[in-house]
Amino acid sequence: MAHNTFGNAFAITTFGESHGPALGVIVDGVESGFPIDLDAIQAEMDRRRPGANPSGTERNEIDKLVILSGVYEGITTGTPIAMFLESTNQRSSDYSHLENVFRPGHADWTYYKKYGIRDIRGGGRASGRETSARVAAGALAKQLLAKRGITIQAGVVQVGEIIATQRDWANVDPILNCPDQSAAPKMVQLIEEVRSANDSVGGIIECVIRGVPVGVGEPAFGKLDAHLAHAILSIGAVKGIQFGSGFAASAMRGSVANDQRTSEGFLSNHAGGILGGISSGQEILFQAAIKPTSSIGVEQQTITKDGESTRLTVTGRHDPCICARAVVVVEAMSAITLLDLYYTAFGKNA
Amino acid sequence: MAHNTFGNAFAITTFGESHGPALGVIVDGVESGFPIDLDAIQAEMDRRRPGANPSGTERNEIDKLVILSGVYEGITTGTPIAMFLESTNQRSSDYSHLENVFRPGHADWTYYKKYGIRDIRGGGRASGRETSARVAAGALAKQLLAKRGITIQAGVVQVGEIIATQRDWANVDPILNCPDQSAAPKMVQLIEEVRSANDSVGGIIECVIRGVPVGVGEPAFGKLDAHLAHAILSIGAVKGIQFGSGFAASAMRGSVANDQRTSEGFLSNHAGGILGGISSGQEILFQAAIKPTSSIGVEQQTITKDGESTRLTVTGRHDPCICARAVVVVEAMSAITLLDLYYTAFGKNA
Amino acid sequence: MAHNTFGNAFAITTFGESHGPALGVIVDGVESGFPIDLDAIQAEMDRRRPGANPSGTERNEIDKLVILSGVYEGITTGTPIAMFLESTNQRSSDYSHLENVFRPGHADWTYYKKYGIRDIRGGGRASGRETSARVAAGALAKQLLAKRGITIQAGVVQVGEIIATQRDWANVDPILNCPDQSAAPKMVQLIEEVRSANDSVGGIIECVIRGVPVGVGEPAFGKLDAHLAHAILSIGAVKGIQFGSGFAASAMRGSVANDQRTSEGFLSNHAGGILGGISSGQEILFQAAIKPTSSIGVEQQTITKDGESTRLTVTGRHDPCICARAVVVVEAMSAITLLDLYYTAFGKNA
Amino acid sequence: MAHNTFGNAFAITTFGESHGPALGVIVDGVESGFPIDLDAIQAEMDRRRPGANPSGTERNEIDKLVILSGVYEGITTGTPIAMFLESTNQRSSDYSHLENVFRPGHADWTYYKKYGIRDIRGGGRASGRETSARVAAGALAKQLLAKRGITIQAGVVQVGEIIATQRDWANVDPILNCPDQSAAPKMVQLIEEVRSANDSVGGIIECVIRGVPVGVGEPAFGKLDAHLAHAILSIGAVKGIQFGSGFAASAMRGSVANDQRTSEGFLSNHAGGILGGISSGQEILFQAAIKPTSSIGVEQQTITKDGESTRLTVTGRHDPCICARAVVVVEAMSAITLLDLYYTAFGKNA
Repeated sequence: MAHNTFGNAFAITTFGESHGPALGVIVDGVESGFPIDLDAIQAEMDRRRPGANPSGTERNEIDKLVILSGVYEGITTGTPIAMFLESTNQRSSDYSHLENVFRPGHADWTYYKKYGIRDIRGGGRASGRETSARVAAGALAKQLLAKRGITIQAGVVQVGEIIATQRDWANVDPILNCPDQSAAPKMVQLIEEVRSANDSVGGIIECVIRGVPVGVGEPAFGKLDAHLAHAILSIGAVKGIQFGSGFAASAMRGSVANDQRTSEGFLSNHAGGILGGISSGQEILFQAAIKPTSSIGVEQQTITKDGESTRLTVTGRHDPCICARAVVVVEAMSAITLLDLYYTAFGKNA
Repeated sequence: MAHNTFGNAFAITTFGESHGPALGVIVDGVESGFPIDLDAIQAEMDRRRPGANPSGTERNEIDKLVILSGVYEGITTGTPIAMFLESTNQRSSDYSHLENVFRPGHADWTYYKKYGIRDIRGGGRASGRETSARVAAGALAKQLLAKRGITIQAGVVQVGEIIATQRDWANVDPILNCPDQSAAPKMVQLIEEVRSANDSVGGIIECVIRGVPVGVGEPAFGKLDAHLAHAILSIGAVKGIQFGSGFAASAMRGSVANDQRTSEGFLSNHAGGILGGISSGQEILFQAAIKPTSSIGVEQQTITKDGESTRLTVTGRHDPCICARAVVVVEAMSAITLLDLYYTAFGKNA
Repeated sequence: MAHNTFGNAFAITTFGESHGPALGVIVDGVESGFPIDLDAIQAEMDRRRPGANPSGTERNEIDKLVILSGVYEGITTGTPIAMFLESTNQRSSDYSHLENVFRPGHADWTYYKKYGIRDIRGGGRASGRETSARVAAGALAKQLLAKRGITIQAGVVQVGEIIATQRDWANVDPILNCPDQSAAPKMVQLIEEVRSANDSVGGIIECVIRGVPVGVGEPAFGKLDAHLAHAILSIGAVKGIQFGSGFAASAMRGSVANDQRTSEGFLSNHAGGILGGISSGQEILFQAAIKPTSSIGVEQQTITKDGESTRLTVTGRHDPCICARAVVVVEAMSAITLLDLYYTAFGKNA
Repeated sequence: MAHNTFGNAFAITTFGESHGPALGVIVDGVESGFPIDLDAIQAEMDRRRPGANPSGTERNEIDKLVILSGVYEGITTGTPIAMFLESTNQRSSDYSHLENVFRPGHADWTYYKKYGIRDIRGGGRASGRETSARVAAGALAKQLLAKRGITIQAGVVQVGEIIATQRDWANVDPILNCPDQSAAPKMVQLIEEVRSANDSVGGIIECVIRGVPVGVGEPAFGKLDAHLAHAILSIGAVKGIQFGSGFAASAMRGSVANDQRTSEGFLSNHAGGILGGISSGQEILFQAAIKPTSSIGVEQQTITKDGESTRLTVTGRHDPCICARAVVVVEAMSAITLLDLYYTAFGKNA
């Protein structure tokens, strides 16, 4: 019941607030003898950080990763791997105007009521910056999955009212990882329009996991989709998840929704590659709903600490659409979940 | 990592297959000194069982519950409460035609590949009947929540293409718990049409949780929505979950999606009553996507154990729409999750 | 944090009070495809039950075991196995004289203060009878270990001041499993003397685990000895545990206590077969200290519910020495712990 | 099943090897609003470090602690607290002579066989240095317990054949925390003699926990003594634990071992303050057996990586008796365990 720990056979424990001196993660359960590709982990960190992405914020944090344990001469030893990120950009002063007021859509209110204390610097633990630790752990999980022929790819398939209608995963755009090259520029344009209006916009991220053998996931409460749902909904901005046909299956008939098969293989994948909570050998497919960034430059109604009505315009630089950067986080949490259940099903030597 | 255990401070462990001699649950962590209302638990069991519901199957199982421990003279003692259901209807013969073939949409294939053995009787552990143990535990959790002023109500808001457009939760129909009295008869009629066609249909269940104080749910991986997602996706037929505006938030602007507030309270509830994973004091709102029943009387393509193509028409009586009965299961899993996190946040004496 | 659950990859959850309608256990994580030997499990149950043992109590409970799930045609399916014991001897009337008073050495006082309610029937959940569920699960674990060449044998090596000085584990006496055939009759005689005096006596149980490969147990908090200590100390009557030379190592020099080795193997086993929390391939050896039975027919000082001083003579039939029956429980908890960590280290297919 | 995590409501996750760049711990579950005394934590670190203690090694590491998260303006925020120690003394060269050989009594062999890789620098993760992270977390737990009137004091009561016969806990010696001022100098002298002989010696540490209310600890597998046993046996050098009269209870009669009581209170404390796994309100008392330091300057028989017999004299500076420094670790693990179960029983606001 350590709420900052996720997973069992492969488990991560994260710490750190938005503007604290450091963030990090301890990864427990990694198999021994694996040569870590540190550059590949750093590359994932770079995908997530603000400023790397033209559609993101303009801040230029550098998420420089350091590994402090569990690796000897580049090889994993089987002991816990601690990965650390120093914060080089701790300007708390940006947030002083928020000291006495709760930002709409943020966790300011619930944290304050729950803990009776509030770290106003950039959302504290509820900040998106907490996800950088997950990305580091996820980048390692991806390498361990790749060794087993399993790959994970996510991309933006909706921004506001712009919807991707094609899925060309071999040719995604560089900003949003969108698999529809004709929709992608419209999405980017919409994000810029929203930015100009000091507003923000939501979207949908789709994730495809390839190469998963039959048998990953456990019955009852250990279902692969249940664990993935837990993992993805633990990302702050996510408001929903659906597997395969998802909510659209609600309108289907069984004769359509059932994935029939022949000796050649399955004829469809409405189930999203999971049957009874266990991977079926098909591609695993899910979508995550991302809400619009809560921090906006539009004046909003809210209350002060004393409960009095007031109005607030959040200043500072914020992503008008969090989707581009959330893609990496969705991939990371998927990788962590999948490796955990893979280890559980087949052991660390398989 | 016991996959048949769910929860921490309030934890359930379930056992039992569809046609085994008994099913049941051990509920661990119940506060002492609480007078259990056994009749109310039995009433919940009756809501779920087949035959009780005109829209359900025609089988007439009786889920007669027995409590075997943890209660002394009607009062909880603080020790684990075991609740048991004997199976009075174990006709395995109905399933002999399935011995050598995998039913489309079912977990037959994945269980067989994972375990190398298969209990063909009614889906074994993957059967919907497993959820009866959850309903028993959930009925107890509901009582413990009610003592604290917290109530949970779920109902069907979509069946196939019929969508409820109103929310009158004080007047739901008796079959589907649908909060739209004009839509409900159309839903029931659609279910009957689908039954006549030997087909099945999906739907959406909405759940409202009232009376939750601010502060339930923990940061990072202990978020209330993440735990609810885990709980609800662990129900076999569920393919998706969304909180508050959910997937619709993807198309919104932040200036619309943010729940502003004044000294009078929140002005909207797009977040579904959860901010940063912690209950905000508003109603908690989510929807679950239910796929069409996999067992249908329409001939489908599938394969045999030897991997050869074949065709199968599933016989026997099956719910054409699982939604009516799943309502109780959604309520149960919500109650279990909420009480667990309530205990975690405030202790058992609060 | 379900306190009635123990283990991870192989986990047990127990329920039931001394005089409730039933006791039982759900065993989660058992590999599929294993043919269970039910008679062997029942034989273990019979070793533990009162009346079976001339040195035990004279009550004649019958621990008749029933398996309710997880087994299909005699073979494990990989789903949770529920095992179940009905109580055929629920005479609560024996305990009415205890309603208003706390028995010295028992958990009456702490349970009453913790839960504010008390099931006076035979100690409720704190009764030794709770261990019958563990024995059932342990008997199954033993079979799964035996398949892997691992065997567990415990026996009494001290009763009161009688100390076994030899270790002939191939020839233990039938009552105490004592590996010293000359000491055993003296132990039995002492137990009878103590019984005549309406008193009780403690002892020491030694446990030998053979055939464990190198590598069982995890670093830090997953150490094999740490988990065994947890398991053994969770048995009510146990007051201590020591591995290998244990407390005697406190008086040794390192040059004596270190287990040196040559190409032929280790030259000694002061460590008890565990180095750094991981099995070394040697025999695993530990001892458990068993306190005298708390229920005695000698008058003792105690207090009433109102806190007033009083005197109490506990009536009813009680084991004058719990060691003989605790041997089976020690073996059971050892088997459960070892299998759990074996699965963790090597997976379920190894 | 993260093996480097311990605890539930209050949980610690540690990382770091003996000679890696850093060690540390993430403490999860700390109540919010608590003013941390950093100097007091540093003082505990100083008690453990080598060189601080005349009976310890002569190395002079400085365990300089840094807090990286979870604290805002000196007050806990309820989010995970990461504490961090940089290694200032990473001279791996000391260990090159061990590259091809296994040190008797060490985990070299089992780690190598389990992981197929070996970090030879000072024992890697199996090093005593790993415990510094526990001491940091334990020092914080002590402060949180002290707020509730609970104090923990451990001291050495045996070194080799020198046994403390008195218990004056208000006047312990400054080196060993020994509660017998006449035995202490003899213990220190014995340690010096053993050091001169290039050998090492074991001992016994006793721990007293005062001020614990009735009700800490949970039935079955959540027993306070079971959790303490797990915690203490997870310390590398510990070979046994006993509560209250412990192994001596084996030779007692029930009429002696039972702790009788009157309206004035208990008349004895053979149980060590725990009844049925739950604190009774008395002092909690246990002893831990500490083996002699494995690293000794006496030539010993061992084998090489290739399995050939060889002889080894371990060089470098090592504690001839680990007891003095282990006292702090025993206190730390006791504090962590007790606070975890206190939070579980009473919540974080009690």
